[in-house]
Amino acid sequence: MQEAEKIAVIGLGSMGWGAAVSLLRASFRVTGCDVRPDVLQRLEDAGGTPCRTASEAAKDAAAVFIYVVNSAQAEEVLLGQGGALETADPGTVFMLCTTMAPSATVSLADRLEAAGMLVIDAPVSGGHLKAMSGEITVMASGSEAAFAKAQTALDAVSAKVFRLGDKPGTGSQVKMINQLLAGVHIAATAEAMTLAAKTGIDLQTLYDVLRVSAGSSWMFENRGEHIIAGDYAPRSAVDIFVKDLGIVTAEAARNGATTPLASIALDLFKEASAAGLGREDDAAVAKILAKKSGVSLPGMEGQA
Amino acid sequence: MQEAEKIAVIGLGSMGWGAAVSLLRASFRVTGCDVRPDVLQRLEDAGGTPCRTASEAAKDAAAVFIYVVNSAQAEEVLLGQGGALETADPGTVFMLCTTMAPSATVSLADRLEAAGMLVIDAPVSGGHLKAMSGEITVMASGSEAAFAKAQTALDAVSAKVFRLGDKPGTGSQVKMINQLLAGVHIAATAEAMTLAAKTGIDLQTLYDVLRVSAGSSWMFENRGEHIIAGDYAPRSAVDIFVKDLGIVTAEAARNGATTPLASIALDLFKEASAAGLGREDDAAVAKILAKKSGVSLPGMEGQA
Repeated sequence: MQEAEKIAVIGLGSMGWGAAVSLLRASFRVTGCDVRPDVLQRLEDAGGTPCRTASEAAKDAAAVFIYVVNSAQAEEVLLGQGGALETADPGTVFMLCTTMAPSATVSLADRLEAAGMLVIDAPVSGGHLKAMSGEITVMASGSEAAFAKAQTALDAVSAKVFRLGDKPGTGSQVKMINQLLAGVHIAATAEAMTLAAKTGIDLQTLYDVLRVSAGSSWMFENRGEHIIAGDYAPRSAVDIFVKDLGIVTAEAARNGATTPLASIALDLFKEASAAGLGREDDAAVAKILAKKSGVSLPGMEGQA
Repeated sequence: MQEAEKIAVIGLGSMGWGAAVSLLRASFRVTGCDVRPDVLQRLEDAGGTPCRTASEAAKDAAAVFIYVVNSAQAEEVLLGQGGALETADPGTVFMLCTTMAPSATVSLADRLEAAGMLVIDAPVSGGHLKAMSGEITVMASGSEAAFAKAQTALDAVSAKVFRLGDKPGTGSQVKMINQLLAGVHIAATAEAMTLAAKTGIDLQTLYDVLRVSAGSSWMFENRGEHIIAGDYAPRSAVDIFVKDLGIVTAEAARNGATTPLASIALDLFKEASAAGLGREDDAAVAKILAKKSGVSLPGMEGQA
């Protein structure tokens, strides 16, 4: 019997961990690395092989999933000392799953391809629970050869793969626009809930009506519940949108486009982060608007 | 056989006309008034009774639907010269369907109730097509007696009535928050499409992916199609959001709440209106962002 393919996962945060677990479930051999020793222990307990460096993890891997936090870290784990390129065989497929500026994605992909590697620009969407069940959505672009080689691994981690062309960069562009909308919609949900509280509307009633009305959004449905429950345990943190809306406004500026709503939303997430809420659920941006408006939302009693 | 109840509809714009048609379909006797003679002729052709004034229309009516554009017009057709209060019998139900500031609704309702009338604060949602088929959504608050008396007429025009308590004002409050979200989401859709066009993403591909992703909204799904088609025939016009977001920011200011996103969106709709786009579809706010960004969206060729 042929030995199972080896897949490396670099960065075992909430999304990367979900990918590792999903790959193990699909009987791949999984190597992984992360800066946190307890996570590496968990990987070993789950049947994977913990590694100290990306270089070690990428040795003999058919594909390398990059799930670190930002483009600087991605560059480091790919091209830096102890990076995956030190050991990866030519023809290895690199899945760039980190949400990065499209220009950063293109730059990294160029360097990987120059070294003989295959690349899929593959930012993901769906959150931790879907990552754990191998059901994330991937906004993917890359060569036919890369997709052919990585197909079974991609199938193991995702329920839906949007194929957005054959060049790295397009996946990141579409993800960037998704984050523009998502970030603005979270801030709008926070603004709506705050104004409702300030003008004396019952938040649950408001939610029940607007969830099925023209004012609804995926984020209103989802984060609205967090605000009503006063539950700011992080599913996705404030600091993620500081980063992602930062990418939006920087890329817009680079291209001469104007993004007034994304800029205002970014300011609110930055303000939340500066107030110590960076690791709370992104819906905690509501606390900033509530304080400015002099009203207390659920879970804020005694904080205002 | 008992003669059918008489219902008055004041203001036969796209929503009021839909209500009149739906009431006629349900075999009510319908009186109507509007400033446009051609619309009154259409009402007569459809089997209704055209009237020159609200006073004339309200005589012997069991209920009076108010579908004028704003609170100033509502005050005029209710309490001004030739207004409905001149002839309405005590106990007539006034359905306030105009989107108004909650404070304006409460003030009007107080004066109507002081004159012995029943009042339902009943702003509507759903657009012209649903109005024509008698399937709008109503965000309604008012007394049990008012609902009991108007129930069959309300059933004739709507598919869904949210009962939001027994006091006029709550319906308008919930509608106001809906408009905050809807207006911000339209502007966000415009911003997303503009940035996508500027950074070279195919708009249809973007739409197909994001419609089913976490960045989606009711407005993205709906107005996104208008922008991709370059179709700015007004389903709901730019000037409606100049008014409705104006209500949001004014009520927020009155209550000491902060609404940074609604304020920015209002600025964009105002700018679109000042550029002569006030009667185009509200998605035309995208043209403003596209011009600022130096990119041409579908339908804008030669306009930038």
